Amino acid sequence: MSESPQSYVHGRSDRESIRLHDQASGLGLLLHEGTRYPPGSTVLEAGCGVGAQTILLAGNSPQTQFVSIDNSPESLAKAKERISEAGYTNVTFLPSDICSLQFPAETFDHVFVCFTLEHITDPLVALDNLRKVLRPGGTITVIEGDHGSAIFYPDTQEAHLVIDCLVILQRQAGGNALIGRELEHLLAKSGFVDIYISPRQTYASQNIPHSSEAVKKIFIAMIEGVREQAIAGGLADPDAWDRGIRDLYRTTEENGMFCYTFFKAAGRKGLQVRRSGR
Amino acid sequence: MSESPQSYVHGRSDRESIRLHDQASGLGLLLHEGTRYPPGSTVLEAGCGVGAQTILLAGNSPQTQFVSIDNSPESLAKAKERISEAGYTNVTFLPSDICSLQFPAETFDHVFVCFTLEHITDPLVALDNLRKVLRPGGTITVIEGDHGSAIFYPDTQEAHLVIDCLVILQRQAGGNALIGRELEHLLAKSGFVDIYISPRQTYASQNIPHSSEAVKKIFIAMIEGVREQAIAGGLADPDAWDRGIRDLYRTTEENGMFCYTFFKAAGRKGLQVRRSGR
Repeated sequence: MSESPQSYVHGRSDRESIRLHDQASGLGLLLHEGTRYPPGSTVLEAGCGVGAQTILLAGNSPQTQFVSIDNSPESLAKAKERISEAGYTNVTFLPSDICSLQFPAETFDHVFVCFTLEHITDPLVALDNLRKVLRPGGTITVIEGDHGSAIFYPDTQEAHLVIDCLVILQRQAGGNALIGRELEHLLAKSGFVDIYISPRQTYASQNIPHSSEAVKKIFIAMIEGVREQAIAGGLADPDAWDRGIRDLYRTTEENGMFCYTFFKAAGRKGLQVRRSGR
Repeated sequence: MSESPQSYVHGRSDRESIRLHDQASGLGLLLHEGTRYPPGSTVLEAGCGVGAQTILLAGNSPQTQFVSIDNSPESLAKAKERISEAGYTNVTFLPSDICSLQFPAETFDHVFVCFTLEHITDPLVALDNLRKVLRPGGTITVIEGDHGSAIFYPDTQEAHLVIDCLVILQRQAGGNALIGRELEHLLAKSGFVDIYISPRQTYASQNIPHSSEAVKKIFIAMIEGVREQAIAGGLADPDAWDRGIRDLYRTTEENGMFCYTFFKAAGRKGLQVRRSGR
């Protein structure tokens, strides 16, 4: 969110929009399990993108008012259309940047952030802003992946190469594709209390219906999305890139496996005011 | 088990014996959850070592007869003493090598293998032997770690270096410290059916009581155990080694985290006889 829309590593193509929705629907149960908000509460979704998580939030907590923000007007428009088509009326979309929030202090009962901190140059600034607009006693929920958690078989150097390309490109764009492991540290550093990390691990293989399809549509499609950037940036030559992608697909075939961990973090804003940056 | 006792990468010191028992008691709930055998059944525990898992098996399935084998007479003696001290009478210990089993075909109702295949040069030979002594319809349970699953914060190159040293030394000794990801493939290749992989992930931090202690006593102690081998083998110089170990300890301190995944695999021997190596 802190970066300009142009530098968002995954791009904002229609294909990417479809990928994000596939990601959310396939992973919805895994990631949103445990996230239900009380009727009448007001929740800030910071970095809603095309609304992939918004539709799950709105459906899972139908009597909660969501304020979903993003810094990309195109993404917001898509999110709005999607929520409206689904018939949900409990979401307000606003253009806003997580690093320069315009809400009054202590506006929200809860805050939800998913796949957003990974794209921000200084996540502590973002978390500090979010803590300010959260009421004392309110909770923050942060969900992020960590590409270093990818374990797969067959395991090849080329497959790691293409994943590393995305990690490097995301770092060059100011983000961090390995942020999952840092969530506990980041929430503590931002002054949140009662921090609890719930790793959500996926195991995909042909023995588990739909799981290998999800790896293709979500993870491999995301890697494939940076092919041109990786080659143009000199991070991989086209042949090595294509071998790496082929090797990733091989993990979804007979007797292959692909494992990945998302980190879901929850914290609370203490009732006593704390100085930021502690 | 296929290697000579001398080449067992972790050694067989008293300290290592204590480490293995710490490992099993701390992780017992996580790894043995779901493993209970029917009264009256006979189960082969292949590669019991010092009995760290045996004591959990015997206690969790008190009316099951276990036959626990190992190729190290010293380990067997320790295991026997431990089980006897605990008052269990449902375990028979036998010196035997998983790669040259002397039992008649179809002797056992079930087979249990934990932290053993990782030390074997050809795990498919071991699995083929185990399948032969298993009755048709019986199950095999295999539990292995995968050091590639270690995710930690703070994340440093030196910390990865010392882990990589163990991976390399274990490979040099004929084993595979990254075998967890291969279990589905190995069981399928050995002709087992109804294969199900259950990853068991641990997340340790100071917010979770005892978890950081477990990382120190189980994981870091295991890495520390190969210090001399790693330095003598030219895999790390003493300073880099010590920095790596210090960095691993740092992950157990304030706002650090350490995550690791064990893979628990279950398969069944089909009722129809299958050719090996399918």
